Amino acid sequence: MRFLFEKAAILGVGLIGGALGMVMKKKRVVKEVIGVGKDPSQLELAIDREAIDRYEKDPRKAVEDADLVILATPVMSFEPLTALILPHLKQDAVVTDVGSVKAGIVDRLDRIVEKRARFVGGHPIAGSERSGVEAATAELFKGSLCVITPTPHTHLDAIEAVKSLWEEAGCRVILMEAATHDRILAAVSHLPHLTAYALVNAVLEAQVKNHDPLQFAGGGFRDFTRIAASSPEMWRDICLSNRDQILSMMEAYENVWGRLKQLIEKGDGPGLKREFERARGVKTRSAS
Amino acid sequence: MRFLFEKAAILGVGLIGGALGMVMKKKRVVKEVIGVGKDPSQLELAIDREAIDRYEKDPRKAVEDADLVILATPVMSFEPLTALILPHLKQDAVVTDVGSVKAGIVDRLDRIVEKRARFVGGHPIAGSERSGVEAATAELFKGSLCVITPTPHTHLDAIEAVKSLWEEAGCRVILMEAATHDRILAAVSHLPHLTAYALVNAVLEAQVKNHDPLQFAGGGFRDFTRIAASSPEMWRDICLSNRDQILSMMEAYENVWGRLKQLIEKGDGPGLKREFERARGVKTRSAS
Repeated sequence: MRFLFEKAAILGVGLIGGALGMVMKKKRVVKEVIGVGKDPSQLELAIDREAIDRYEKDPRKAVEDADLVILATPVMSFEPLTALILPHLKQDAVVTDVGSVKAGIVDRLDRIVEKRARFVGGHPIAGSERSGVEAATAELFKGSLCVITPTPHTHLDAIEAVKSLWEEAGCRVILMEAATHDRILAAVSHLPHLTAYALVNAVLEAQVKNHDPLQFAGGGFRDFTRIAASSPEMWRDICLSNRDQILSMMEAYENVWGRLKQLIEKGDGPGLKREFERARGVKTRSAS
Repeated sequence: MRFLFEKAAILGVGLIGGALGMVMKKKRVVKEVIGVGKDPSQLELAIDREAIDRYEKDPRKAVEDADLVILATPVMSFEPLTALILPHLKQDAVVTDVGSVKAGIVDRLDRIVEKRARFVGGHPIAGSERSGVEAATAELFKGSLCVITPTPHTHLDAIEAVKSLWEEAGCRVILMEAATHDRILAAVSHLPHLTAYALVNAVLEAQVKNHDPLQFAGGGFRDFTRIAASSPEMWRDICLSNRDQILSMMEAYENVWGRLKQLIEKGDGPGLKREFERARGVKTRSAS
């Protein structure tokens, strides 16, 4: 039996990096998996949970001889991190990322990496409101979509290698332009998280005489608090790096919101029912 | 063993009315339970599922000799329905409702009913995005709060009777002013539903070249589609009858939303992280 890669370095062994490490080891996709992270106790846990074989403190040391490098830290750190490891990358190594935002970033990483190695942008659309390797499992990606965003310069072999990796993880892989990916994710992922954050904070600020409104929260509101419990660092970076698409979707949302508000102000029952019926019919891929 | 009531009429045998009927029969709280509804097939199903003993088409006929009447139709129908049954109510019967909005409605029902019987406003904070008696179970209310909103004219015996009924259903009962109830529910229930409806419709309207964004929706967005699948008629009536509190909470939400949007526009990472961290700490009663 042949490994897909000899040695992989995972930079950032959190939920996604940890789960991918588990897949690599369990499916014997990679012979040796090295983790890099800031917190040694998390890295020890990653070894215990069989997400990595060993760890290094210094990313430059970790990527030496690695034929696969995974960027799995918050997206805003990708560029400085890649600049740091560049001189230590193995010639023709495959470098890929798991970031939730792709346009701009992919182009810039492409240009940095191409001097020595081969970059391929990727994004497995999977996750959890829990973070850290303690929440990771090798099953996390099963049945998910993974978007790969090649540029005109991306090596076809590198695309195929990254594609095989995610297929081993149980993903359906789809190639797409980075800008299209970012617009879609702004709609179905970034916007929902922002509405959840805004809602939870609005309720926190709501003053009710003698009562804590949160004590009366039912199932609907609990879904929002669960979504709003996602990693603040990750969501900060997503908002900063997908700024334009997010602002555009926020404005689309404001239009619908304004329409609903007007219907309520006017007491327009049939209009409200139409809006609610329209939303009711929506089914997503996995829910249908 | 003594029944709490001899004969109960449930007007509207949907999710809540059906589940309450199941409790009444299973716990032997009421000797005979009569259902009223528009759809005979739903009422037959209610008999099969042991939510009611039999049904009547005409609410006036159903309430004759009933010592307990439950209003479990959409809230906007409570007043005309109560006016219709009034001449047929048994002297001193207890009339109660399960509506999600209480101020105004409770006062008006109180004034209609007091001529013959005793009204007590109630609201079990339980539910599901599914509707109809097919989704009802006798366990629906277990561990939930039930708010009772007496007025200065409400008979103490009637309060106690309705309180006992909901305690049999497994609720913790809390007495509260109608206006306070409506403000709290606007925050933790009505506002979340409106954000879910707005989000789902905004994503429906989002145009992405060659792709259907819904195919890329992950877990977060699916929670919103589930919430937005709730009964359009029920939510129309809630918006119409709790208009002022909902508009006030919508404005509180717009403030937080505007703050988030500005932070994204300015690219203010620390400010975004602070907002997200604040939301992250929130725990609701049952989730903690």
